[in-house]
Amino acid sequence: MDVVNRTEIRVRYADTDQMGIANNSMYLTWFEVGRVELLRARGLTYRGIEDAGYFLPVIEAGIKYLKPARYDDVLTVESRVAKCTRLRIRMEYRIFCDGKTIVTGFTEHVFTDRDLRPCRIPETVIGRILGTTK
Amino acid sequence: MDVVNRTEIRVRYADTDQMGIANNSMYLTWFEVGRVELLRARGLTYRGIEDAGYFLPVIEAGIKYLKPARYDDVLTVESRVAKCTRLRIRMEYRIFCDGKTIVTGFTEHVFTDRDLRPCRIPETVIGRILGTTK
Amino acid sequence: MDVVNRTEIRVRYADTDQMGIANNSMYLTWFEVGRVELLRARGLTYRGIEDAGYFLPVIEAGIKYLKPARYDDVLTVESRVAKCTRLRIRMEYRIFCDGKTIVTGFTEHVFTDRDLRPCRIPETVIGRILGTTK
Amino acid sequence: MDVVNRTEIRVRYADTDQMGIANNSMYLTWFEVGRVELLRARGLTYRGIEDAGYFLPVIEAGIKYLKPARYDDVLTVESRVAKCTRLRIRMEYRIFCDGKTIVTGFTEHVFTDRDLRPCRIPETVIGRILGTTK
Repeated sequence: MDVVNRTEIRVRYADTDQMGIANNSMYLTWFEVGRVELLRARGLTYRGIEDAGYFLPVIEAGIKYLKPARYDDVLTVESRVAKCTRLRIRMEYRIFCDGKTIVTGFTEHVFTDRDLRPCRIPETVIGRILGTTK
Repeated sequence: MDVVNRTEIRVRYADTDQMGIANNSMYLTWFEVGRVELLRARGLTYRGIEDAGYFLPVIEAGIKYLKPARYDDVLTVESRVAKCTRLRIRMEYRIFCDGKTIVTGFTEHVFTDRDLRPCRIPETVIGRILGTTK
Repeated sequence: MDVVNRTEIRVRYADTDQMGIANNSMYLTWFEVGRVELLRARGLTYRGIEDAGYFLPVIEAGIKYLKPARYDDVLTVESRVAKCTRLRIRMEYRIFCDGKTIVTGFTEHVFTDRDLRPCRIPETVIGRILGTTK
Repeated sequence: MDVVNRTEIRVRYADTDQMGIANNSMYLTWFEVGRVELLRARGLTYRGIEDAGYFLPVIEAGIKYLKPARYDDVLTVESRVAKCTRLRIRMEYRIFCDGKTIVTGFTEHVFTDRDLRPCRIPETVIGRILGTTK
């Protein structure tokens, strides 16, 4: 399985804090941009998944901060599907700046219905994500 | 009419940017905290208003930044109902730090239904906001 | 004077609130992206301006919300230099979605030094912004 | 060692996303509020630590999301010093709502100087944090 996507993000002024670097909470938002763009590259949109009645709340997240990102840096978010079943999905991320890894992390999600109750996502969606279905 | 409320907010680290002051976008969020607490002091909750099917999207906002707010400052947000009809409401704000006004501003809202279509809010709610109904 | 720039922004999930639309505070951040990209198109970077010891804190802002922006919408931020002297700059913005104007607004800034004391910015920088100097 | 602090936070409208719950990135900001208030309860301020030339950038963070937080919920952030040496500090957090644990997590920090180079923090500061020095 090799479901990987790369997307670019530029650090905004509002993303920084008075330490002069991107605030530590921003990376979870950038991970989200990464996974949404990975889905889009597979022909899916997260908006479409929600319109079909499925949600992907985060149940666990982890982040290792190796180097700081600074204002106006252009970051590359590399997102990878580490595991995907009809019940849950695990994504892994690597963020690069100037060719160096600055952050690694993961998010784990369950599939739920509109009321945030766990459910199974259709096989066809999994097939689209994993590239086993066209 | 004298519908005024004061509420305190402490500037968080994530609220600052690399200029070493609170980011200019934060004040709109603090205005929101101010108006929610004003409603609560009138015996209303914004959550309750939404549960009843009414929303208050912002249609206009203005902010004058007189002095910067800094990390860990305790701000006082003074919120005032400047005008309120069954169709719309105008709120005015003054933010103090150490007894000095650092920001003034306003927001104007329309009342809408769940689908964000303009609607009239019940007289009783207006009465509660303006203090003419108990 | 015709100093205009257009830049695209996609609405992120974290930008929305439970009203199902982009939170009203996000537009100030998007205005910031717009003005930074306008400067970049003029051969200037805001990072470079700060490195040279000049800051542009916002002293006033105004926003009119005509239509909501929704998750995953691609917005076009059109930024314009409305006025620029050695002491201050006024920017105006228009945000489009699907060819319709959804938000208009402005920000006014003073030029300051590192300690946020008002100062005069060099003529050459003004010339670069206004396109009268190469 | 029993260095624990509890602080309350109310979920703001801007903290929610269109899933109708607090956005997953907010918890890192709330953890920050928790650790700042723990320090304050020990007679230290994070502002004072920075003024003395020490910074505490996050090098690792983890979050388990057990239940969602909703708009206007009042959360209790319980922060605990799990480990503290002159080089680094590990904090653990538990967030409660209505008496139930909704999120657990941790952050790990190194002590650095103004240029974000690792350094040793004075014994007296450690003593203040751990309560072994008055």
